[in-house]
Amino acid sequence: MTELQNDRLLRALCREPVDVTPVWVMRQAGRYLPEYRALRAAAGDFMSLCRNPELACEVTLQPLRRFDLDAAILFSDILTIPDALGLGLYFEEGEGPRFRQPIEGVGAIERLGVLNTARDLPYVLDAVRLIRRELNGRVPLIGFSGSPWTLATYMIEGGSSRDFVRTKSLLYAQPDALHLLLDKLAASVVDYLNAQIAAGAQAVQIFDTWGGALSAAAYREFSLAYMARILRKLTRVAEGRRVPAILFTKGGSPWLEQMVDSGCDALGLDWCVDIGEARRRVGDRVALQGNLDPAVLRAPEQVVRREVEAVLRAFGAQPGHVFNLGHGISPDIEPSRVGSLVDAVHSISANLRQGLR
Amino acid sequence: MTELQNDRLLRALCREPVDVTPVWVMRQAGRYLPEYRALRAAAGDFMSLCRNPELACEVTLQPLRRFDLDAAILFSDILTIPDALGLGLYFEEGEGPRFRQPIEGVGAIERLGVLNTARDLPYVLDAVRLIRRELNGRVPLIGFSGSPWTLATYMIEGGSSRDFVRTKSLLYAQPDALHLLLDKLAASVVDYLNAQIAAGAQAVQIFDTWGGALSAAAYREFSLAYMARILRKLTRVAEGRRVPAILFTKGGSPWLEQMVDSGCDALGLDWCVDIGEARRRVGDRVALQGNLDPAVLRAPEQVVRREVEAVLRAFGAQPGHVFNLGHGISPDIEPSRVGSLVDAVHSISANLRQGLR
Repeated sequence: MTELQNDRLLRALCREPVDVTPVWVMRQAGRYLPEYRALRAAAGDFMSLCRNPELACEVTLQPLRRFDLDAAILFSDILTIPDALGLGLYFEEGEGPRFRQPIEGVGAIERLGVLNTARDLPYVLDAVRLIRRELNGRVPLIGFSGSPWTLATYMIEGGSSRDFVRTKSLLYAQPDALHLLLDKLAASVVDYLNAQIAAGAQAVQIFDTWGGALSAAAYREFSLAYMARILRKLTRVAEGRRVPAILFTKGGSPWLEQMVDSGCDALGLDWCVDIGEARRRVGDRVALQGNLDPAVLRAPEQVVRREVEAVLRAFGAQPGHVFNLGHGISPDIEPSRVGSLVDAVHSISANLRQGLR
Repeated sequence: MTELQNDRLLRALCREPVDVTPVWVMRQAGRYLPEYRALRAAAGDFMSLCRNPELACEVTLQPLRRFDLDAAILFSDILTIPDALGLGLYFEEGEGPRFRQPIEGVGAIERLGVLNTARDLPYVLDAVRLIRRELNGRVPLIGFSGSPWTLATYMIEGGSSRDFVRTKSLLYAQPDALHLLLDKLAASVVDYLNAQIAAGAQAVQIFDTWGGALSAAAYREFSLAYMARILRKLTRVAEGRRVPAILFTKGGSPWLEQMVDSGCDALGLDWCVDIGEARRRVGDRVALQGNLDPAVLRAPEQVVRREVEAVLRAFGAQPGHVFNLGHGISPDIEPSRVGSLVDAVHSISANLRQGLR
């Protein structure tokens, strides 16, 4: 493999010193970019992009051609796993993801298989290999998966949800059935992430998008426990280097201390917690990733710079910070704002490191 | 005024000992009750219920006829204030609240008045007086208002929102304009709550439904600061007794320590934080209200009892707990579940106090 020219992300995730704070943006390859919208229109739909390694590679690289980002992240969808397990993923315009065969009843959970990534999702691994080749060592590639709990909510609700009525009813009334589902999903995620790492992913992130909908006790039992199990079984060294794992539970700020015990290298933070306070709560046990409110990107450039500086200063001088938004970038954001963000992170963090300003 | 026969709520909110833990339920007067749906159908629409003191009184009392609740809460809507300020509230079936004249531009903020409750919302005060008379001292009556930030989001977005695009754009790009709006709304809420207290409300709750959408710094500046100002100006003694004020920010669990500094008597908790941990974080400075996941009410009765006991045990033996859900009850809940909940809170907390089981 080609040597990595910019390893800030991997160093920061391992809490090693870096010259400037690395930055990437959740959903950096996505609808806010006109070249993405053009490619998607040509491809027909979203899943056609995901399923075609050349297109997935192209979309992954689009933001890196515009901005000085410190990482690429595999372009894919968290719902590829349930799709590969036979639920029939499709996207309804304006409705978000849907499944043709959602999980209904314990029988469906018992019949569900466990993912074999090489057999069931070869297109994802082909995309990882292709992106690595095209990146040619410029920046590291992040692989990812949804968390078992988050995948389970989509599989049971049949799509997006606000209140998770069916999933929570199962949780409280038939917890053993939900545990069986989460068990199979955790095994699937282990296979999926390890296959991505074997194909070339240099860091991984687990997206627990809906863990924040749970009570503290239910989060521990039905989301965090399975992510901890995954982390214990992940390949942690590849190409002679640590493969850091980032755990991101949106709405998870009440539980940071417990999330650290999962064995992750870094916690992704949403924008609701002060990153300096999060740092004090978790100490130096993990790196932190985040956590600018994505809404800041609608503000004038000087406001973006001011808010970036506030996050950098709140985190402070110690190593272990990867800059990101607290959630995915919105489709309505002007692309040049991302350039302003990236440049602000790099220039302000360089100045702060030199004790200037 | 008639003497209060059940003052558990007021005692618990003031962290005084009580025989059993008091319980009420957010949205306890609402769509899950068939008698509410019947009355609303007869009235025509939601606002006709709110604007008619007799109907508002009847709806307020409906859950108390069924369940051994320890408080009544005024039946009204948090958007009565912007409606009275001229924005033209209406409800679109399945769409939630909307305004005919949302706030557009700084000029609209400058033209906006401050609420004079006696002049602008007499029907609310008439309802409070009528409910107090009908309650006849059975349990205390809670008055309420939306928080300035939460009201501002509806007024600027024109209704419910997921991302608060317009409000946050104003926040980051024209903070002075937003502060002017929040300033007027804070003055309006002070007038509104003090008028409710003068009319007979014996405790008040500020609903900061959307404070949790803010960053830590923005929450302090644009939501908490205005609630603290309101709390400083509230009537705190009426009828010779403390009128406790409850502050409820949904999604506010990262900021509990700062919320305590606002001067509230109690914090309302959503279900995401462990109430025992919240207790440790805030010490004995305030009472805590909450915090069962509303989804538990879809589970079988023995699960409801188990989860109620878990919350009661997590809070522990010290005074200062008011039991509630972590958010409003959903319309699909079977009414008898609320009976199970109330009975479970009373019987289990009595047993725990006696060291039995």
